[in-house]
Amino acid sequence: MLEELKKKVYKANMELPKYGLVTFTWGNVSEIDPETKLVVIKPSGVDYDKLTAEDMVVVDLDGKKIEGKYNPSSDTSTHIELYKSFPDIRGIVHTHSPWATSWAQAGRGIPCYGTTHADYMYGEIPCVRNLTQEEIEEAYEKNTGLLIADYFKDKDYMAMPAVLCKNHGPFTWGKDGLEAVHHAVVLEEVAKMAARCEMLNPQNIPAPQELQDKHYYRKHGENAYYGQK
Amino acid sequence: MLEELKKKVYKANMELPKYGLVTFTWGNVSEIDPETKLVVIKPSGVDYDKLTAEDMVVVDLDGKKIEGKYNPSSDTSTHIELYKSFPDIRGIVHTHSPWATSWAQAGRGIPCYGTTHADYMYGEIPCVRNLTQEEIEEAYEKNTGLLIADYFKDKDYMAMPAVLCKNHGPFTWGKDGLEAVHHAVVLEEVAKMAARCEMLNPQNIPAPQELQDKHYYRKHGENAYYGQK
Amino acid sequence: MLEELKKKVYKANMELPKYGLVTFTWGNVSEIDPETKLVVIKPSGVDYDKLTAEDMVVVDLDGKKIEGKYNPSSDTSTHIELYKSFPDIRGIVHTHSPWATSWAQAGRGIPCYGTTHADYMYGEIPCVRNLTQEEIEEAYEKNTGLLIADYFKDKDYMAMPAVLCKNHGPFTWGKDGLEAVHHAVVLEEVAKMAARCEMLNPQNIPAPQELQDKHYYRKHGENAYYGQK
Amino acid sequence: MLEELKKKVYKANMELPKYGLVTFTWGNVSEIDPETKLVVIKPSGVDYDKLTAEDMVVVDLDGKKIEGKYNPSSDTSTHIELYKSFPDIRGIVHTHSPWATSWAQAGRGIPCYGTTHADYMYGEIPCVRNLTQEEIEEAYEKNTGLLIADYFKDKDYMAMPAVLCKNHGPFTWGKDGLEAVHHAVVLEEVAKMAARCEMLNPQNIPAPQELQDKHYYRKHGENAYYGQK
Repeated sequence: MLEELKKKVYKANMELPKYGLVTFTWGNVSEIDPETKLVVIKPSGVDYDKLTAEDMVVVDLDGKKIEGKYNPSSDTSTHIELYKSFPDIRGIVHTHSPWATSWAQAGRGIPCYGTTHADYMYGEIPCVRNLTQEEIEEAYEKNTGLLIADYFKDKDYMAMPAVLCKNHGPFTWGKDGLEAVHHAVVLEEVAKMAARCEMLNPQNIPAPQELQDKHYYRKHGENAYYGQK
Repeated sequence: MLEELKKKVYKANMELPKYGLVTFTWGNVSEIDPETKLVVIKPSGVDYDKLTAEDMVVVDLDGKKIEGKYNPSSDTSTHIELYKSFPDIRGIVHTHSPWATSWAQAGRGIPCYGTTHADYMYGEIPCVRNLTQEEIEEAYEKNTGLLIADYFKDKDYMAMPAVLCKNHGPFTWGKDGLEAVHHAVVLEEVAKMAARCEMLNPQNIPAPQELQDKHYYRKHGENAYYGQK
Repeated sequence: MLEELKKKVYKANMELPKYGLVTFTWGNVSEIDPETKLVVIKPSGVDYDKLTAEDMVVVDLDGKKIEGKYNPSSDTSTHIELYKSFPDIRGIVHTHSPWATSWAQAGRGIPCYGTTHADYMYGEIPCVRNLTQEEIEEAYEKNTGLLIADYFKDKDYMAMPAVLCKNHGPFTWGKDGLEAVHHAVVLEEVAKMAARCEMLNPQNIPAPQELQDKHYYRKHGENAYYGQK
Repeated sequence: MLEELKKKVYKANMELPKYGLVTFTWGNVSEIDPETKLVVIKPSGVDYDKLTAEDMVVVDLDGKKIEGKYNPSSDTSTHIELYKSFPDIRGIVHTHSPWATSWAQAGRGIPCYGTTHADYMYGEIPCVRNLTQEEIEEAYEKNTGLLIADYFKDKDYMAMPAVLCKNHGPFTWGKDGLEAVHHAVVLEEVAKMAARCEMLNPQNIPAPQELQDKHYYRKHGENAYYGQK
């Protein structure tokens, strides 16, 4: 069942340790099948060096396990809410990557200080608030997804494929699992350089809007000219 | 004698350089055998790349060497006092891992700024005071253990499996040597991210208690649901 | 066509990931052929681990593609302007290397705090201003090159083979592509150490001029005595 | 001639890139032969990945080349002055290792904030002043050695096997080349942790003297008990 997608999701998961984004089991990648609306996701708490494609878990959009010998990631409900709210995405990543998590722990969004950021993400990377005690107790992971979805309800989630959850860490997404991983790597690099540039210039301000626009639109949209067609 | 345990302790020791927690010989792992109450520990000052399972040293809870061609770690007396005071643990690690040691050198405990920390350790990771000149001269390593034990005498040492010794470095523990190493890795990651998030927000405050509780108890205790059963 | 030069440029490009200067496709190396005035450059957006020498693109000094199955780097026009203004160079590198980019994002030149810097670069590494909206819209990449060339019009570009573009990142150059890469590595090390030394001493001032002179001229010019003749 | 010593010095040099202490050719190790008073040292500006034992250069204590196809390190005169002033050492290392060099660029000695430092080096690691213009012009490298020797003339250079030269970088020494490299690694770790602990606690003070004494003397002198006898 969904064997090709399981292989894809397995490979995308294995990119996380390769890029230094996860320690132990602190991360997960999922991808949704557009036909069946089933989601393939990493099992919870299984070590990356023991993981196989067959270990991937299949769940439906109600969070019910459809196939798999393991429990799905404990963050599965967050992924599901994002798939339900963001119809144009097919892949989601969660990590505790150190620089992005440091911004999340500081409760701050990441200003766009340069073109590395603007090449992929349009504007400040947001940091959403803590859940209330009631929201945590009622349904922590699902409400995390709803909070993110609510933040983006009047925004372009394809132009900002990343969010920080306060005191927790980042989620990123994309047109498939691999692109979501790609965005997680970009986020970590951008988070690192933004922290260092504030250290070098505590009064730093974001890059001029026209420079942000130039870089974002030379890679995105109909007038893009970066890369190969 | 205790050949299986020696292999386990050897393997746990070799995880320290693998995870970048030790330079040269600056670390050690021990594990206690619950039947005989004998402790297997790394020999003092032997390079990791020359270490073998047979080099492990066996001592009793009086600190007497029972078997081994080498002297045991110079920190053996600290390990012994912890085993005597913490009956539920079987493994102990000491390192000079750079971020945790930087907090110890700064004389500060590590506030719980996020869920990475709360997933493993409940509350602020404590930093215990310097020993007095008298305590140092009388029995430095043993008194280090007694000081840590005294700090935890009315606390849950299983919910806080780590401590910093001021101007020195960290000790961690767990249900065996490998789990103690696991906690040493977590500590280093948490120490790194806490330092960076204070740099990003000098007025930072700890994560809300309900979020700390949620993450700690989704991995620990009878209602835990993280991972596989 | 220019097969030897393509191999050289390919090899120089592959040094960028080896030295940790690029993530994904965030960098490029070019070299000019002094006879034909043709420039060989990395194709735009092609992954380093799929790159081959045959993928290199040949362009002329008007920016016209002369040979190659791919589009040239989107930064090609910047390279071309530098070759036109700096007749003594044959190689150019652009990266988003993290420390140098952090200084660029902070909008600051890098003071010469020590001999590591003075060994290769004479004086403060400059950070040129943002382009105006008009300059960006008219011809972003070409105007970036013109801005750099204008900054150096009365300066010795061989004694300062590096520049930071505000909110963007660094360009470096040299007598061939490999030397330009060498300078990109030096720049990253120097940028890292300058940031850290300001952290250690916020009132830090540049190294004494006579020390800068000693180190620069023991490696450059007719009285140089570093290395082998 | 001195073939065994050349191999030792070659191996000690190769430890520098292994421990991440050098970029390109920015470092060198020498060792003196106690019988002949000849010094074996790395050639100047030769890449580490092309270096062989036969490339090592032999010089006498007047700085005259006795054997070798290459020029000796440009820092040879500094090494020679140290050998002449420090009769108990046989090995010397110079690097531009990033953390130690950052302290040197900041013009600050490294306070002893913890036991990692005290285990190897007794007290604050000194940072000696800049040479004057006259000293630089007369004999830069030789006067660097004389300045260091003068600083230590009434101090125990075996208990403090490291020094920082302002706006330049560190020298370390030891009973042979390998021990001098060992001290260069310790210095870099200690420099890193001291910088970070000041970031965490800007009012930080050195470790209590009795703790420094305990750690230094448990590894050095007649009452040492660390390691194997």
